[in-house]
Amino acid sequence: MIDGCFTLLERSGLSLNNITAVGVGVPGPIDYKKGMLKHPPNLPGWRDVPLLDILEDKLRLPTFLENDANAAALSENLYGAGRGVDNFVYITISTGIGGGVVINGRLMRGEDDNAAELGHMTINFDGPRCGCGSWGCWEVYASGTALARFAREGIASGRTTLISDLAEGYKVRAEHVFSAAKQGDEFARELIQKEGFYLGVGLANVVNAYNPGLIAMGGGVTCEWDMFYDEMIRVMKERALKANIEKLKVVKALFGAEAGMIGAAAVAFNS
Amino acid sequence: MIDGCFTLLERSGLSLNNITAVGVGVPGPIDYKKGMLKHPPNLPGWRDVPLLDILEDKLRLPTFLENDANAAALSENLYGAGRGVDNFVYITISTGIGGGVVINGRLMRGEDDNAAELGHMTINFDGPRCGCGSWGCWEVYASGTALARFAREGIASGRTTLISDLAEGYKVRAEHVFSAAKQGDEFARELIQKEGFYLGVGLANVVNAYNPGLIAMGGGVTCEWDMFYDEMIRVMKERALKANIEKLKVVKALFGAEAGMIGAAAVAFNS
Repeated sequence: MIDGCFTLLERSGLSLNNITAVGVGVPGPIDYKKGMLKHPPNLPGWRDVPLLDILEDKLRLPTFLENDANAAALSENLYGAGRGVDNFVYITISTGIGGGVVINGRLMRGEDDNAAELGHMTINFDGPRCGCGSWGCWEVYASGTALARFAREGIASGRTTLISDLAEGYKVRAEHVFSAAKQGDEFARELIQKEGFYLGVGLANVVNAYNPGLIAMGGGVTCEWDMFYDEMIRVMKERALKANIEKLKVVKALFGAEAGMIGAAAVAFNS
Repeated sequence: MIDGCFTLLERSGLSLNNITAVGVGVPGPIDYKKGMLKHPPNLPGWRDVPLLDILEDKLRLPTFLENDANAAALSENLYGAGRGVDNFVYITISTGIGGGVVINGRLMRGEDDNAAELGHMTINFDGPRCGCGSWGCWEVYASGTALARFAREGIASGRTTLISDLAEGYKVRAEHVFSAAKQGDEFARELIQKEGFYLGVGLANVVNAYNPGLIAMGGGVTCEWDMFYDEMIRVMKERALKANIEKLKVVKALFGAEAGMIGAAAVAFNS
């Protein structure tokens, strides 16, 4: 995987002489002092990888690691949908749920650079087990992976739905649910309504925890947010403290997959 | 109630000439710009009270309002159990659950000065209704009020327990549950074990949300924390992200009921 980076760099035709510093967005948790990836739950096999040393040895350039969700939050706060917002939350709804939080104009890193693990806030202590080892985390209910899991569970229990046809024998993914709903599939529409509900529950937690002025949402699932936006906002407003939602804006993030990259570059640029 | 403050001041024999500024800890939400209590859920009848104007008119001294949980957090961070901790959370477990959060050495106020509403983070979206209008908030499960409610529900469903005897016909309170448990009452012990569980669930959320270096806990319920501390910490460690608990300390707050007062004074003093 690291070799892949070097190959890409060679193919790009970029000369290292034109590069002053390197910023890398990586999944947390990170040991910033040692420049090490600790044990990212979504990168099995990576454990205590001294990525900073590996990259600096090869590139001979000052290199900076940043948690990818933090990097994305930073890019949105500096250049994107949350530009100039002092109290800002970025949330990505994708395979998992991640986020980054800006408080008083500064990225909230926490004591171990591992704050704002939004996807791992419990919304039901009796809920299903999460990859992190806990139960009923937000991402177990509202990530793209969760949406696909709910679909598969419904199919296994005998629900008639277009979703299975669209998956063509492959494993059902969140995209299949959205496609089926667009074709009027009843079960897919129910699932997406539930997706909106679960997102709204978690957003209310975010709103009560950080009282942000603006929340920007990115990640694959938000590409289809017209299909669940109303329900998500309704549930959030029903559950969050009234004082915290009077002026709150919830918008789509400006950058897509490149948000983490832009933020990581900003980290290197500003260091 | 406001008149009561003036009466107390007169009785104290303090001369206003010896006072430079006044800090007041009040339940949130507050409109800081207008110096107004908005609609504190735990102070029914108080709605849009211009407390700052009322006090300044009477006292003729610069006056500062601060959310009481924030004030308490500040006192613990400046002079108490969390002294010098850059990323610090104060939690009070009492009638409700409140808190204050310090990030990068600064009080996290949020966009509407209403951040860190820890007691109103959902831990079970299907849970009982909360006074705030949401469902399954942390304080619905783990406040002193919740502990007493669980006891009353058990008694109503026919559990044999000393708790009813100790309440002597009055409404059961959390204190009765702790007293009964000390006398070996089985049901009371179960309830306190559950109290530890629910506190641990919420602490894990706090740990994942803010990644603090230290959490200080105060409020009436913590007076008895020897009885639930082990279970609370066990559940927190089981559910929080490992990276966030390696160095974390959870301690009792240093100040008692006077924490809010000390913090409010500090706000006035530092303004």
